[in-house]
Amino acid sequence: KSMANTSRSAPGLISCPICLDHYSEIVDSGRLVVSTKCGHVFCSQCLRDALRTSHTCPTCRNKLTSRQYHPLYV
Amino acid sequence: KSMANTSRSAPGLISCPICLDHYSEIVDSGRLVVSTKCGHVFCSQCLRDALRTSHTCPTCRNKLTSRQYHPLYV
Ligand SMILES: [Zn+2]
Ligand SMILES: [Zn+2]
Ligand SMILES: [Zn+2]
Ligand SMILES: [Zn+2]
Repeated sequence: KSMANTSRSAPGLISCPICLDHYSEIVDSGRLVVSTKCGHVFCSQCLRDALRTSHTCPTCRNKLTSRQYHPLYV
Repeated sequence: KSMANTSRSAPGLISCPICLDHYSEIVDSGRLVVSTKCGHVFCSQCLRDALRTSHTCPTCRNKLTSRQYHPLYV
């Protein structure tokens, strides 16, 4: 498995490094933009799916439970 | 005191609702972009200053301590 790469997107612009959807695509489809405790940003669907198979952050691989992320209001 | 207003900025674009600096201005000046547990985003300097006088989130007024926010890597 390769690590999700956040450097593809422009800095300061929100997108999900897993599905590559941008903020507006995420929100328009009813998903939330979420941030982990370690500061990594995903769409809610991709992070939920990832945590089903591994209890780690897809970007930095720190331990992560479903209680250690929160919606981001930007 | 009025509540910090996040609706001034374009959705999906990171800026601090207190000093109104955008992502690049925040980062270029050596500050961090931070998110509270309640999902509100600020520059590290403004949030630190705000928490000195009130232990609440400047945007939503939920209780907030200095351990309940984290840098955001976007
Ligand atoms: Zn996604
Ligand atoms: Zn992480
Ligand atoms: Zn600020
Ligand atoms: Zn808040």
